[in-house]
Amino acid sequence: MIQAISAFAGTDTIAALSTSQGMGAIAVIRITGPNAINVTESIFKPLGKLSLSERPSHTAIFGSIHEENTIIDEVLVVLLKGPKSFTGEDTVEISCHGSVYIQSRILQLLIKHGARPARPGEFSMRAFRNGKMDLSQAEAIADLIASQSKAAHKLAMQQMRGGFSKQINQLREQLINFASLIELELDFSEEDVEFADRTAFRQLIKEIQHTVNSLVNSFASGNAIKNGIPVVIAGEPNAGKSTLLNRLLNEEKAIVSEIAGTTRDVIEDVCIIEGVMFRFIDTAGLRETVDTIETIGISKAYEKMGAASIIIYLFDSAVKNQEDVISEINIIAERFPSAQVIPAANKIDINRNQFNTIQGIIEISAKDNTGIDKLKERLLLESGVNSGDSEIIVTNIRHYEALIKVREALDSVIHAMNSSIPSDLIAIDIRRALHFLGEITGQITTDELLGNIFSKFCIGK
Amino acid sequence: MIQAISAFAGTDTIAALSTSQGMGAIAVIRITGPNAINVTESIFKPLGKLSLSERPSHTAIFGSIHEENTIIDEVLVVLLKGPKSFTGEDTVEISCHGSVYIQSRILQLLIKHGARPARPGEFSMRAFRNGKMDLSQAEAIADLIASQSKAAHKLAMQQMRGGFSKQINQLREQLINFASLIELELDFSEEDVEFADRTAFRQLIKEIQHTVNSLVNSFASGNAIKNGIPVVIAGEPNAGKSTLLNRLLNEEKAIVSEIAGTTRDVIEDVCIIEGVMFRFIDTAGLRETVDTIETIGISKAYEKMGAASIIIYLFDSAVKNQEDVISEINIIAERFPSAQVIPAANKIDINRNQFNTIQGIIEISAKDNTGIDKLKERLLLESGVNSGDSEIIVTNIRHYEALIKVREALDSVIHAMNSSIPSDLIAIDIRRALHFLGEITGQITTDELLGNIFSKFCIGK
Repeated sequence: MIQAISAFAGTDTIAALSTSQGMGAIAVIRITGPNAINVTESIFKPLGKLSLSERPSHTAIFGSIHEENTIIDEVLVVLLKGPKSFTGEDTVEISCHGSVYIQSRILQLLIKHGARPARPGEFSMRAFRNGKMDLSQAEAIADLIASQSKAAHKLAMQQMRGGFSKQINQLREQLINFASLIELELDFSEEDVEFADRTAFRQLIKEIQHTVNSLVNSFASGNAIKNGIPVVIAGEPNAGKSTLLNRLLNEEKAIVSEIAGTTRDVIEDVCIIEGVMFRFIDTAGLRETVDTIETIGISKAYEKMGAASIIIYLFDSAVKNQEDVISEINIIAERFPSAQVIPAANKIDINRNQFNTIQGIIEISAKDNTGIDKLKERLLLESGVNSGDSEIIVTNIRHYEALIKVREALDSVIHAMNSSIPSDLIAIDIRRALHFLGEITGQITTDELLGNIFSKFCIGK
Repeated sequence: MIQAISAFAGTDTIAALSTSQGMGAIAVIRITGPNAINVTESIFKPLGKLSLSERPSHTAIFGSIHEENTIIDEVLVVLLKGPKSFTGEDTVEISCHGSVYIQSRILQLLIKHGARPARPGEFSMRAFRNGKMDLSQAEAIADLIASQSKAAHKLAMQQMRGGFSKQINQLREQLINFASLIELELDFSEEDVEFADRTAFRQLIKEIQHTVNSLVNSFASGNAIKNGIPVVIAGEPNAGKSTLLNRLLNEEKAIVSEIAGTTRDVIEDVCIIEGVMFRFIDTAGLRETVDTIETIGISKAYEKMGAASIIIYLFDSAVKNQEDVISEINIIAERFPSAQVIPAANKIDINRNQFNTIQGIIEISAKDNTGIDKLKERLLLESGVNSGDSEIIVTNIRHYEALIKVREALDSVIHAMNSSIPSDLIAIDIRRALHFLGEITGQITTDELLGNIFSKFCIGK
């Protein structure tokens, strides 16, 4: 099916700025398509005698970009002849000086000489259409670019390198074998033969269901890893919530800030602990309203707590005792069953009550930075982010939704078999499961689906 | 002298992000120095059998960046062996995925394996120290990157390609010839010989003075081209100043906005007309105070008009007549002698007085977009930006200041010759002129000077 699609690709030549927008020391403009080399040659004068098309692939050539007699820039051009390029098509990468004016002029010149501005994700779409990678691998590129933490990066990298695709393809192949036997039965339906061993088939479907279930269940954690694990710090006024938040953020902010170009917007209320990103949900309102812990009203604040994976229940160790705290934790746990609750006794630097840590209560002083490491360990533990290297985790909502449909189709298959429903109806459900598995990796696709996926990419990728 | 300096360069290996900061499809990290290849090899696994150091220069190699067993990214590496690189030293350019996280991780890895984070402009400083370009050419790179208009770009490109350096070096060589003859006289001073022909020498100094004067005078225009020609729109309330400003900005803003990544900050109150940038000085206060045109007080507004190269004097064609306008133009011209005044009769779409355009009055309707093209032509004309291709224009204040000192030294030479001052004193002034000419292109330099210059560059260049 990839072959059929690739016939549509590469009919024209596209160009885009591939590096981050704005001024930099250098910028890279990428051109790909059947005329990539020709288009570049019409504006580029290489140093030396050989023209661009006479050079071997994977060479870097110094030269200048011209508009008639005006030199626009001195540039380094990298020539990547198809199929040994990212898109699989002839590709030229122009490293120019990073002036916004120069970037714009070179792009305009390329367009004047026959290239077309690339749409978002169009380079990756071509890579997919030319069979350089499957759809979930292409999608992983966008995730990779957006990744901000070690854990998110690892998942995207695993997916880009085909770990996830491999698993999906294995499921698909197993199903296809049986599907073909079932289809064969249909061809011979008048003879009432059974090519497909029903017991083995049932066993196989159950195994596939198990794997699909694990993948579906991994999405909650995958999504949290990708976007940050939502955490709420709850507690009465003066429990020290702001101090704790600042302590957690400031400690880690230094690390995040080392990353060049990370804007404050991005890192605000986010902290990365051992490569896992935690996103502190803004509880500006919440912070003042959690004192009404026993008179629960339907408030905005509680909605936010409902969205949290982890609730740090912070209290003043001088004000509350063990009994109060345990009853409050129970109320929170009951009201927010999907969140893990971490009770933290703050202000242990001053006069205070004693707490039994067996109850999971962590004793801290946000002010003195005591017990914060323990709290972080606990955050990591409760985050449920498995550090196992081999586990495949679903991070993409499109994959998640497709897997849900696969699961439904497999449920129907099992139901049909249990109800002695004829093979032709079972075949329909198997085809449906195959269809949705194929959608994940892109064996089955439509222009609309591709348009949806790649339009979310940045331009130049 | 370049040789002497280059001995200091390239003792260590530096790395930096060279593309614009932030997230992009790809990013480029550059490493240069004696260990650039070794450092890269310790984290990069190339596709294929040959190691990085075994590959020829100017090749692009696909592979992956590793931290122990973890793959950080799949990258394209361009190998540029010294001296055939920008810095003249072994250089590696790593094109990675443009995630801020990945950029940061790769940089950290390079630093872990022996590279040092590059200081601002350090790549260019090495290019200078290794004799790949002179100082004014290196400085032009920063101007090139910052250039926002065609005219500014052209000047920077001319300077980067050595046009300006050539002229300075010519002046310097001419002086050196004579200087050596004068010095020779000093060696034979007891014999009272004259190796240097005083008449020819005087003639030469005058020629050099002429060239230096042109360069000094070109700075006003060069600076305006680089930073935008300052324009004030003055006029009484309701003359239509805001409408005109919006008309001028909006017309051109569309063009500027095509340039990817141009932020509103940058383009605010700037418009580019046929490649020349005009910067409209904020006259928020001015706009309301110019009604006191005949009762001139010392106001902030008038200071601003004093900083303008061009004042558009806008008036309502229904309110004023030719006689009023001419007297007002005269007042403005007298008060702001360094500005060009463009009188513009606005609101010609409605009932109005007639004006004699021989007086240079342009009739417009900012509202209806009538006469705006004529106004723009006039702005271009009054900007004094010469479109001649060969003229050398000074844009850099450091060069300007050095040229002023050259001029002073030459004045002293002429004065000394006129006053029959002995050759040894003349020789001192000539050496002074040579010194400041040499400072421009960097034949004569100090670490402090270089530090000052390159610290203003961006990192990665």
